[in-house]
Amino acid sequence: MPVTIELHKTITASNDADARALREELSRKGILLVNLMSSPGSGKTTLLSRTIRDLPEISIAVLEADIDSDVDAGRIERLGARALQLHTDGMCHVDAGMTARGLEVLGEEGSDIVFLENVGNLICPAEFDTGAHKNVMLLSVPEGDDKPLKYPLMFRKSDALLITKTDALPFFTFDTEAAVRRARRLNPDIRIFCVSAKTGEGMADWEEWLLSCMN
Amino acid sequence: MPVTIELHKTITASNDADARALREELSRKGILLVNLMSSPGSGKTTLLSRTIRDLPEISIAVLEADIDSDVDAGRIERLGARALQLHTDGMCHVDAGMTARGLEVLGEEGSDIVFLENVGNLICPAEFDTGAHKNVMLLSVPEGDDKPLKYPLMFRKSDALLITKTDALPFFTFDTEAAVRRARRLNPDIRIFCVSAKTGEGMADWEEWLLSCMN
Repeated sequence: MPVTIELHKTITASNDADARALREELSRKGILLVNLMSSPGSGKTTLLSRTIRDLPEISIAVLEADIDSDVDAGRIERLGARALQLHTDGMCHVDAGMTARGLEVLGEEGSDIVFLENVGNLICPAEFDTGAHKNVMLLSVPEGDDKPLKYPLMFRKSDALLITKTDALPFFTFDTEAAVRRARRLNPDIRIFCVSAKTGEGMADWEEWLLSCMN
Repeated sequence: MPVTIELHKTITASNDADARALREELSRKGILLVNLMSSPGSGKTTLLSRTIRDLPEISIAVLEADIDSDVDAGRIERLGARALQLHTDGMCHVDAGMTARGLEVLGEEGSDIVFLENVGNLICPAEFDTGAHKNVMLLSVPEGDDKPLKYPLMFRKSDALLITKTDALPFFTFDTEAAVRRARRLNPDIRIFCVSAKTGEGMADWEEWLLSCMN
């Protein structure tokens, strides 16, 4: 059974300042914090599971944020990685104070990378700086290539976009070129990786980029 | 080009009272308002398109709520149905005041059914009564059968659950029985339909239920 903590909204108007302080503290400790965001069911936990298995030489820990349940933390723990389930008290996003509290309970010391798997939501998490060094979003093939048109802020705020479940491309109408073009129109600098955590396609490029962020 | 209106948060603390008043007004006019909710990319617009084509004898109009773009209203208009695009000013949900404003601009008179396609979000829309007579949620097969565990409020608040994209069942690990059991544990009265708007599977049962709600 994974450890679960109950979070409540941080009582501070200074989320941006808290996020900056957290980011600087983690940088001093040599820990990379990556905020993973997407719609529900885009494959965040499956991507993390594959990444952890592919990078045994890297110490990876995971904060799993959800409104309820501890299924995701359980999946990560079964891989032998450290995981903490965060319950957000019904809230649709994670802020810097909640992230800091999660790291405190997790004990992030000794980790190379900590992933914050944010609440499944393509809107609200984009509005709150969590203190992460990198914001990474997933868009899964079954969701459709029009999502940059409808949820522009998430694409603007992300350093990297992973187009996931590419093994499902034969079964869905998804125009990868259109999705990439729409994402780049919102965010010309966004790094884009097309991956399938099921087949392993594209995972090496994503993992190479991730490792390059550690320096 | 579909008509688009820009909405702003209703300045009232009495959303529940506004919602009740709107619901009663629509009942007096003999109009059924259905609030459609789901994650981004679960197939709300595709379901609506198929439903409109399957029920030519019913006058259906659609309010399409999105943070940005008018792609969904455009899709509905091309079917010959009336549609209005609502832009939510970045907001993650629609409330009763926004719905009433949309209906006013749309001109709902003469419609049998008005669908409100809510913002793609499995969390926040469940917290706001829009004035709809029925709340209907979609869970698509690619999202996974664990969603009731993670987003319980949406399942509790919905009168009906449509498990969509059932044509994709052979390509994904989705335990329909587990999803149904988990949904019913949260909401024993929820009506559940398994549908594929692509193949038409299950659409007749959903449409029969929809028509029964008109009385």
